[in-house]
Amino acid sequence: MAESTARWLRASCPQVWGSLHGHPFLRDMATGTLSLERFRFYLEQDTMYLVEYAKCMALGAARARSVDEVAWLRDSMDNIVDNELPKNRELLQRVIDLGARDRGGSRGMAPTTLAYTSFLTSTAYRGDALDVMTVIMPCAVSYREIALELVDQIAPDSLYTGWMEFFVGDFYGARLARMQANLDELAERAGPGRRELLREEFATASRLEVAFWDMAYECRQWPDLAVAPD
Amino acid sequence: MAESTARWLRASCPQVWGSLHGHPFLRDMATGTLSLERFRFYLEQDTMYLVEYAKCMALGAARARSVDEVAWLRDSMDNIVDNELPKNRELLQRVIDLGARDRGGSRGMAPTTLAYTSFLTSTAYRGDALDVMTVIMPCAVSYREIALELVDQIAPDSLYTGWMEFFVGDFYGARLARMQANLDELAERAGPGRRELLREEFATASRLEVAFWDMAYECRQWPDLAVAPD
Amino acid sequence: MAESTARWLRASCPQVWGSLHGHPFLRDMATGTLSLERFRFYLEQDTMYLVEYAKCMALGAARARSVDEVAWLRDSMDNIVDNELPKNRELLQRVIDLGARDRGGSRGMAPTTLAYTSFLTSTAYRGDALDVMTVIMPCAVSYREIALELVDQIAPDSLYTGWMEFFVGDFYGARLARMQANLDELAERAGPGRRELLREEFATASRLEVAFWDMAYECRQWPDLAVAPD
Amino acid sequence: MAESTARWLRASCPQVWGSLHGHPFLRDMATGTLSLERFRFYLEQDTMYLVEYAKCMALGAARARSVDEVAWLRDSMDNIVDNELPKNRELLQRVIDLGARDRGGSRGMAPTTLAYTSFLTSTAYRGDALDVMTVIMPCAVSYREIALELVDQIAPDSLYTGWMEFFVGDFYGARLARMQANLDELAERAGPGRRELLREEFATASRLEVAFWDMAYECRQWPDLAVAPD
Repeated sequence: MAESTARWLRASCPQVWGSLHGHPFLRDMATGTLSLERFRFYLEQDTMYLVEYAKCMALGAARARSVDEVAWLRDSMDNIVDNELPKNRELLQRVIDLGARDRGGSRGMAPTTLAYTSFLTSTAYRGDALDVMTVIMPCAVSYREIALELVDQIAPDSLYTGWMEFFVGDFYGARLARMQANLDELAERAGPGRRELLREEFATASRLEVAFWDMAYECRQWPDLAVAPD
Repeated sequence: MAESTARWLRASCPQVWGSLHGHPFLRDMATGTLSLERFRFYLEQDTMYLVEYAKCMALGAARARSVDEVAWLRDSMDNIVDNELPKNRELLQRVIDLGARDRGGSRGMAPTTLAYTSFLTSTAYRGDALDVMTVIMPCAVSYREIALELVDQIAPDSLYTGWMEFFVGDFYGARLARMQANLDELAERAGPGRRELLREEFATASRLEVAFWDMAYECRQWPDLAVAPD
Repeated sequence: MAESTARWLRASCPQVWGSLHGHPFLRDMATGTLSLERFRFYLEQDTMYLVEYAKCMALGAARARSVDEVAWLRDSMDNIVDNELPKNRELLQRVIDLGARDRGGSRGMAPTTLAYTSFLTSTAYRGDALDVMTVIMPCAVSYREIALELVDQIAPDSLYTGWMEFFVGDFYGARLARMQANLDELAERAGPGRRELLREEFATASRLEVAFWDMAYECRQWPDLAVAPD
Repeated sequence: MAESTARWLRASCPQVWGSLHGHPFLRDMATGTLSLERFRFYLEQDTMYLVEYAKCMALGAARARSVDEVAWLRDSMDNIVDNELPKNRELLQRVIDLGARDRGGSRGMAPTTLAYTSFLTSTAYRGDALDVMTVIMPCAVSYREIALELVDQIAPDSLYTGWMEFFVGDFYGARLARMQANLDELAERAGPGRRELLREEFATASRLEVAFWDMAYECRQWPDLAVAPD
């Protein structure tokens, strides 16, 4: 049996994934010291991100070669539109109600959100369903890995508990497994000639994942839209 | 309350819709004299058409402006992927099992299928969710109108009964009503400046609907792919 | 040295190219019996076609992989924008001044013009510079072949003389040779895995060339836009 | 006469353009203290940028509404393909020959180059010729403004002299004036409903111009591709 392309991609840029796992934003989530305003900034940007992430999946469906590929991409999109986005908005409202300050996250896409979503969009217009599956994978996989790593460290009544429980749960786990199986099948159909480009696309999206946490941790907005900390 | 754009579009090219309703393919379906090979040709081409029709909806989702627009287009796509395509394939298999000859419909897209699907695709790449809703509407609406018109004339055990029942039924009816409401809302958001272009897009797609039935009735394939009647 | 892909494609669908060369529109041009209104219809539709043909080349440039590929597609576009379109418009004006009736060609794209341009556009959005070069080639090559075939048969002071002289001339000949060399180089870079799809794309565009002459000869407009002959 | 949209856009985000003019990279160019390795990093990234910048113009041509709009975008592309890119490559070779170290600029697109080019590409796929003209303008205008500001301060035999002379010269000046006139005409055709989106697109591209100089000044590559200073 052929090696899983999803697994091979995941293992292909260990340095970048090392930075992802050790990120201070996530460490502070685990210790419960992450400031509310950082979490608010993250959620505001992530909500804008997820809309474009879902559209990238729709583009993948539109650029697929067969109807089963259309269905696979549609299934990935469903999770964002029906679960992650509503969940995110609820949590954002809760964080605002708890008094989190706006550090400029509500003023529009911050530099890294713009970079990441523009990369997803332009890759999808240039590529096909397989390229889309590849660039959406770092986000999809890392959230599961992160949540599995942190779930035991976080107090059960924390603000972050619900967020983690979703990504740790069976519903998300089964969905991710299907996405990985779909990516493997798409890669199988496309043949080995695509591997090098896929590796680059996966690495770029992984770097942007790290950059997204950096941005959230520093509440890094464009200079002319930034709001200084107190 | 504003006039429904969906209704206004439907009423905007009566001559074309007249040809649609009086089409010999449909008249022969009603009288039960439509040849099996014509129906086979139709189903073969319609199956290729529906894959691109679904991808056009996916493109509409990708080019939407908000997440509710993404969801509306996704809902339209669901019906094609989950209902119409499997239903079509089953019926095609049944027609083949009944001994329908291949008049070249299996050899690839016939001229009008190519024209129609290329028009849908290129319009979607140029436009947005509203343009997509507009060009997919003639097919969606006319199938309901046609089925409602013919359902009482066709023997209940006919090959065409199941086909009609789907489009006459409440499931499809509710779905179409939602599509029309979504189109109206999209048109409302876009403002009156778009009306003239929408009217043209709707008219072109309506003409292609007529041309599609023409093609099916005459089993019109490219000359070098055609199979002559017995 | 590798076989020329441009030449291989040209030889790959002899039946279609047979219909192209023996077309009544061209035969009537040669004998001088082509009616002015047919030529007018052709020019009106060809002008709309060429705008989309040029944009297809621009899309090819946008979807190219390297800057030399961008330049090659740009060069092809230059000829349409700077030479063929202005030349076409002048000739159309002359034909109108000579009293050619409007057979509906001025009322918008006829079915085959819509089919052909939509096919070019959707192929370009799906593909890359090589796909674009492939689908624009049947038009580019066949005009040279047609003009070379007919140039000696046509009276030197005919309406059609200038049209032919352009495609027979060294300027166009050199440009076409460069396009073919560019296609060969692009195919070389892409590798043999693309050949089957290229062959299909070339065949479809070739069939649409035949259909375009059919349309022009019969002044075939959409039924609701058509103008009957006297 | 209507106000120039190009001028209005230029005046619409003074804070961002203030950062552009006072940038340390440019100040160090003027005083002759800019390190060769920073200039090399800039040129390596700018070369990758310009290829995508030219393709963005090609996309604008492909998504234009009329043939004169196609020609305008093509004209802008010509300058990049025929002048700026070859000039850039020559200068890069000269800088390398002078012994400039590679600070990772040769290893692929740095974060800001990726962000900027992805933004250009995704905007072009979503928009039309006017959106493209708007997002390419900050780069086109600022290089002229920067060069005019610095040209007198720089020693005539500096490495930077040729670079500046191009952007100060009449050839580039006339080309830029035409681009601005084309943008004004496109905005006139599109009507005032587009202004707010254009302003946002212009602001984003302007912020990315500043970020591009930041990146060059700090030789900021992805962490896993970076080369530390000596």
